[in-house]
Amino acid sequence: MGNELTSRATDYSQWYNDLVLKGGLADYSAVRGCMVIKPYGFALWENMRDQLDKMFKETGHVNAYFPLFVPRSFLEKEEGHAEGFAKECAVVTHYRLKTDPDNKGKLMVDPEAKLEEELIVRPTSEAIIWNAYKDWIQSYRDLPILINQWANVVRWEMRTRLFLRTAEFLWQEGHTAHATSEEAVAEAEKMLHVYADFVENYMALPVIKGVKTPNERFAGALDTYCIEALMQDGKALQAGTSHFLGQNFAKAFEVKYLTKENKQEYVWATSWGVSTRLIGALVMAHSDDEGLVMPPRIAPLQVVIVPIYKGPEQKALVDEKVSGIMASLKAKGITVKYDDSDHVRPGWKFAEYELKGVPVRVAIGPKDIENNVVEIARRDTKIKTSVPVENVDQYIVDLLEDIQQNLYNRALAYREDHITKVDTWEDFKKVLTEKGGFISAHWDGSNETEDKIKEETKATIRCIPLNAVEEEGKCIYSGKKSSRRVLFALAY
Amino acid sequence: MGNELTSRATDYSQWYNDLVLKGGLADYSAVRGCMVIKPYGFALWENMRDQLDKMFKETGHVNAYFPLFVPRSFLEKEEGHAEGFAKECAVVTHYRLKTDPDNKGKLMVDPEAKLEEELIVRPTSEAIIWNAYKDWIQSYRDLPILINQWANVVRWEMRTRLFLRTAEFLWQEGHTAHATSEEAVAEAEKMLHVYADFVENYMALPVIKGVKTPNERFAGALDTYCIEALMQDGKALQAGTSHFLGQNFAKAFEVKYLTKENKQEYVWATSWGVSTRLIGALVMAHSDDEGLVMPPRIAPLQVVIVPIYKGPEQKALVDEKVSGIMASLKAKGITVKYDDSDHVRPGWKFAEYELKGVPVRVAIGPKDIENNVVEIARRDTKIKTSVPVENVDQYIVDLLEDIQQNLYNRALAYREDHITKVDTWEDFKKVLTEKGGFISAHWDGSNETEDKIKEETKATIRCIPLNAVEEEGKCIYSGKKSSRRVLFALAY
Repeated sequence: MGNELTSRATDYSQWYNDLVLKGGLADYSAVRGCMVIKPYGFALWENMRDQLDKMFKETGHVNAYFPLFVPRSFLEKEEGHAEGFAKECAVVTHYRLKTDPDNKGKLMVDPEAKLEEELIVRPTSEAIIWNAYKDWIQSYRDLPILINQWANVVRWEMRTRLFLRTAEFLWQEGHTAHATSEEAVAEAEKMLHVYADFVENYMALPVIKGVKTPNERFAGALDTYCIEALMQDGKALQAGTSHFLGQNFAKAFEVKYLTKENKQEYVWATSWGVSTRLIGALVMAHSDDEGLVMPPRIAPLQVVIVPIYKGPEQKALVDEKVSGIMASLKAKGITVKYDDSDHVRPGWKFAEYELKGVPVRVAIGPKDIENNVVEIARRDTKIKTSVPVENVDQYIVDLLEDIQQNLYNRALAYREDHITKVDTWEDFKKVLTEKGGFISAHWDGSNETEDKIKEETKATIRCIPLNAVEEEGKCIYSGKKSSRRVLFALAY
Repeated sequence: MGNELTSRATDYSQWYNDLVLKGGLADYSAVRGCMVIKPYGFALWENMRDQLDKMFKETGHVNAYFPLFVPRSFLEKEEGHAEGFAKECAVVTHYRLKTDPDNKGKLMVDPEAKLEEELIVRPTSEAIIWNAYKDWIQSYRDLPILINQWANVVRWEMRTRLFLRTAEFLWQEGHTAHATSEEAVAEAEKMLHVYADFVENYMALPVIKGVKTPNERFAGALDTYCIEALMQDGKALQAGTSHFLGQNFAKAFEVKYLTKENKQEYVWATSWGVSTRLIGALVMAHSDDEGLVMPPRIAPLQVVIVPIYKGPEQKALVDEKVSGIMASLKAKGITVKYDDSDHVRPGWKFAEYELKGVPVRVAIGPKDIENNVVEIARRDTKIKTSVPVENVDQYIVDLLEDIQQNLYNRALAYREDHITKVDTWEDFKKVLTEKGGFISAHWDGSNETEDKIKEETKATIRCIPLNAVEEEGKCIYSGKKSSRRVLFALAY
């Protein structure tokens, strides 16, 4: 088969790469840090994107498209933003190649085609978008602006990993403009809930909603809200962020509006995004040593049917039975494929669709036809059941829903089992190295302590949970007073 | 209103810009040659994209995503391709900015972060994709590959126009790989028909299908198929192209496959694309001096309802009537908006939705309610009709279909009236300057003649129509023998 997978226990990181590559989600490319999203991976992304897009539109947002390039001087305008992104950006300096006079058939940069001002390939679009909003916003009647963009962005990361951290990635970025601070905060929070809803109910992945510490905020934000998920190796993964940007970008780009009271005021902003990184989270959260496990609601393929037969006569019988089942499944909106390719054995196909994480596999052979049943295998538990052909469509509809729930419950149980309350520095280090997961502990609120903990253990504060309760305590590291617990973890 | 439009007769080119800008389709950006696609324009693009995507999938294609960057050396590999694109590409030479030591708060390119090999922002993706296909194709079983990509591309055009010619634009590019030449040619032709189907039946724009002359071929293609449309000013616009690439890219990237007969052979290729340029075609084909005219099947908004009232009591009556109509229209899948904003008058709204080209406008006032009717205005002919509320939903469904047909018929009548058979050079020049449109004339088949005609008149051969009949004749310019007519025109 050539498809042997590394097990999680042997090498979690290699297991992940194996799944992404051999499962057909993505491939390395010839361009450093950039990946190719292959058709199966892209079909998954399309399902995720379409569902998110629907949720954005239902909450009043519209899509638009802004330029790929950000002039260098735009990036400079918001200081924190510039510092955050300047060190990892692709810079366009020329607009033409020419034939190399010393090297036949080769091209070289044409030195006469140097740009007066360099263009940055967008690492994010606040700067270019707020420069446009300046012309679009005059009065309170022009507000709010609720725009989202689906786009590619580039951040020149030094260490890359397929989906989790790539130089180029696909994402959506919402950029909204509001008349008041309250409205902007409410928007940032609303989008956090939309993200949580999507990740939990479609990706079957429970998340913790929280706020980032100042250290971990987006470059240019006053507050960064986040959803944090837990992977099977006990490391956390930030699955989405939503930023309250205050008036920082309005001030940088001089975006003012006339209030109802006829006064000029700066506009309030949010931005929020999720990316193809979510695919990495999906893979690491649900998959097993046999391959990917796709949550039914976003699976590129929900059901595969494999025929078992000897000779054309048996095949014809199976074909006939399958065509009825296919039609009834399609009528119920289920994506289904009949794999009757004849150059590989059924066993090979079983392994292949397990690797790809197709939620439900149906097998039909001559004996099944005699008994008017099919064999149904669910990917999550690998349990096989013989099911009467009659009403098999409804059985599968219910089964897909059951698998979706089971994946969520399984991930939730693991996550709940991996939030550990810790009150001493010794226990903190012990839990971090021996058990992993989230550590709920007191923190004195200072950047210095946060930095020192990170230096000593690599653990970061993932978030201050939105639902954190007031509780008197002492900082795990400094012993200073603290009024609530925060969540620490090693993270992707 | 500030929305006065230049008329077509006054200045066609300014009229076009007015419509795009004031109609809310797009805006200029701070980045030379790049535009912002505004929400209304992007909603139009989404409708076009979704329909095309559906048609691609129905013809067996899948989507994927390849890197934004093409290493310089990849572009060099296919000679014709390199020549075609090297002179107009954005070149990334560095991967980092740093703080300018001499200029506080400013950023500069970090000279230490120079790339060993420059990266080109993709002007098209043949090179990067065929480099990937090399790893994906071993045997005939891996063929065909039928992949499409939705992406942004950059071509550093010197003279740009919103939608028609921009440095960055959005498009789709299909890239397919086949075992035989015949299969590849059939694919290129199939996609040409898909494009024609889309442009004619959704954009309501008749096209001529043809083949480009060698001069006008895509850089790297053996044959370029195209669809050509006619704009209201008598100039042609290439609306889509489909290329038979032969084995050029397979040879450049060493992509061979093992045949059933166990021989190594080079793979055959096609590529095909349409872009946001189609939006420019749409604007120029159907719009009038009052604004945009959207074909119902892809209109971002199909129906707008405007209330006419004095005081809250009348408003309440209108609201109630409208809510029933809205519900029944939505149930029929029609996009409808009730614009009851109260800071502008109905007359202002009428003009605004005319400018935006909304196909159907419904107005309801107290007298209409008394008579149980609504006033319906169609955008294409501007005819108003009083229609009973009962069954108004079905009336509108039929009306939208009628508008779609009428737009197509109108454009077709204009096009048919602007294909002129010409047999002398004098007539050629006369028709070109005085009437415009397509000129059907004999051509001797040589690049030289084609070039000279272009030099003297700016007219190009738009295509050799697929349905061109054999006909003995003499070249319009050289007098040499010719066996069929081709279509000339001034073009966008």
